[in-house]
Amino acid sequence: MQIAILIFDEITALDAVGPYEVLSRLPGADVRFVGAEPGLKGTDNGMLRLMADEAVADVPHPDVLVVPGGVGVALQAADPRVIDWLRAAHATSTWTTSVCTGSLLLGAAGLLDGLRATTHFLRMEALRDFGAEPTGERVVRAGKVITAAGVSSGIDMALTLAAEIAGDQTAKAIQLVIEYDPQPPFDSGSPDRAEPGVVAKLEAAVRAREQAAAARAAAAA
Amino acid sequence: MQIAILIFDEITALDAVGPYEVLSRLPGADVRFVGAEPGLKGTDNGMLRLMADEAVADVPHPDVLVVPGGVGVALQAADPRVIDWLRAAHATSTWTTSVCTGSLLLGAAGLLDGLRATTHFLRMEALRDFGAEPTGERVVRAGKVITAAGVSSGIDMALTLAAEIAGDQTAKAIQLVIEYDPQPPFDSGSPDRAEPGVVAKLEAAVRAREQAAAARAAAAA
Repeated sequence: MQIAILIFDEITALDAVGPYEVLSRLPGADVRFVGAEPGLKGTDNGMLRLMADEAVADVPHPDVLVVPGGVGVALQAADPRVIDWLRAAHATSTWTTSVCTGSLLLGAAGLLDGLRATTHFLRMEALRDFGAEPTGERVVRAGKVITAAGVSSGIDMALTLAAEIAGDQTAKAIQLVIEYDPQPPFDSGSPDRAEPGVVAKLEAAVRAREQAAAARAAAAA
Repeated sequence: MQIAILIFDEITALDAVGPYEVLSRLPGADVRFVGAEPGLKGTDNGMLRLMADEAVADVPHPDVLVVPGGVGVALQAADPRVIDWLRAAHATSTWTTSVCTGSLLLGAAGLLDGLRATTHFLRMEALRDFGAEPTGERVVRAGKVITAAGVSSGIDMALTLAAEIAGDQTAKAIQLVIEYDPQPPFDSGSPDRAEPGVVAKLEAAVRAREQAAAARAAAAA
C-alpha cells in the first residue's frame, strides 16, 4: 500500500508527521515523501527541514494521498506540477486526505466541488471558493475524501483512516503504541471554547502571515 | 531562547515534531535540530528523514533541551559525544526535557538519578536502571527536568513547558493555532484502558524490534 505525503517549503511539520506516525505503522505501508521536486523542504517556522526523496512525478498513483497544510500552500496551489499530480493521483487513489489548509490545495485542484470538507478554523470560509461545504467537524469524510481540521487533527484523521484500511484492532494498536491518550493542560484547542481574547489575537497574527505568503505567491505567479 | 532538539537515526518522528510544533511558536524561539554529527537522520519506520543542521558540539548550552525517543536511543546511549553533550548541556539548561524513550538517554547520562520520571509504557521499568522512580503520569516534572510518556505525549509536555516559559495565555494561543482539541476515534491510547489483547500483541512486536536495536548497539560498541 503506497502512501504519498506531499511536502513543500513552509509546510506545517505536524500536519505531515502526525499522519505519518500513524499510517507508517500500517501493515505493508510504503510511505513516500514527495515534493514538486525532490529535496529538503523547510517548515513554516523556518527551523526544521524534511526530506522529499522523490518528485510527485515519480509517485503517480499512490493508494493513499496525504496533503498537509501550512503557509506554503499558496505557492503550491500556483504550481501546475502539484495541481496536475493531485488531479491524476486522486483519479486512481483509494483515499485522498488532507490536514489543515492542505484541503485548500485539494480545492484548488478541483477535488472538493460539492463535498463537505474542513480545514484550519481560520481559513474555513476559503473552502467555499472551491465549491466545498465547510463543516466544523474535526475529521470529515465525503466518499473517499477525508479532510481534517488544523494541524494536530491529522492524528485523529489518520487513526480513522487506519481503521478503514486495516480494521479497528490495528488502529487501536497504533493508538496504543504512540500512547495517544491526550491530556492537554488547557481547554483551548477549539475556537468555540478558547478565550475570545486568545482567538482574536491569534487571528490577527496568522492572517498577517498568510497575507505575506499570498503576496509571495502572487509575485511568483 | 535557544531550544536544542536532538535527532538521530531511528528516532520516532512525532517525539521530536510534536514538541517542535509547540515550542517553535514561542516568542523568541531559536530551535536547533542537532545530531552527534550533522546530516539527515532516518526515522524508526525508515521512510522519513529529518535534517540535523548542526552537531551537538555546535550548540553546547541551549536554554531548553528536548530529547526524543525511538529505537535508535540504544545507539545514542553508547555514543560519548551524545552523553557528554547531554551532561554539559543539562548543567546550564533552564529546562531539560524528554519524550518517550528519550528519558532513557537522560538516564544513561546520569541525569535522572533520584528523580520521578516517565517514558514509553513498554519501557517503564528500564528507568530504574538509572536510579529514577517510574510513574504512570503523562507529563512528569522534577525540578527543571520534564519527562513525557510515549510519542504523542510530547505535545502535552510542550504545552506545559510553553506555559512555564511564556505564561498560560501564550500556551493557550499555541494550543489553539495547532487546533489541539483531540478526538481520537478509540479509547486505546493507554495500557490501562486498551483491550488486553491489543496490549499483549503490541508488547511482543515492540520488544522484538527493541531487542534487534539493542543487539546492533552492542555490536557497534
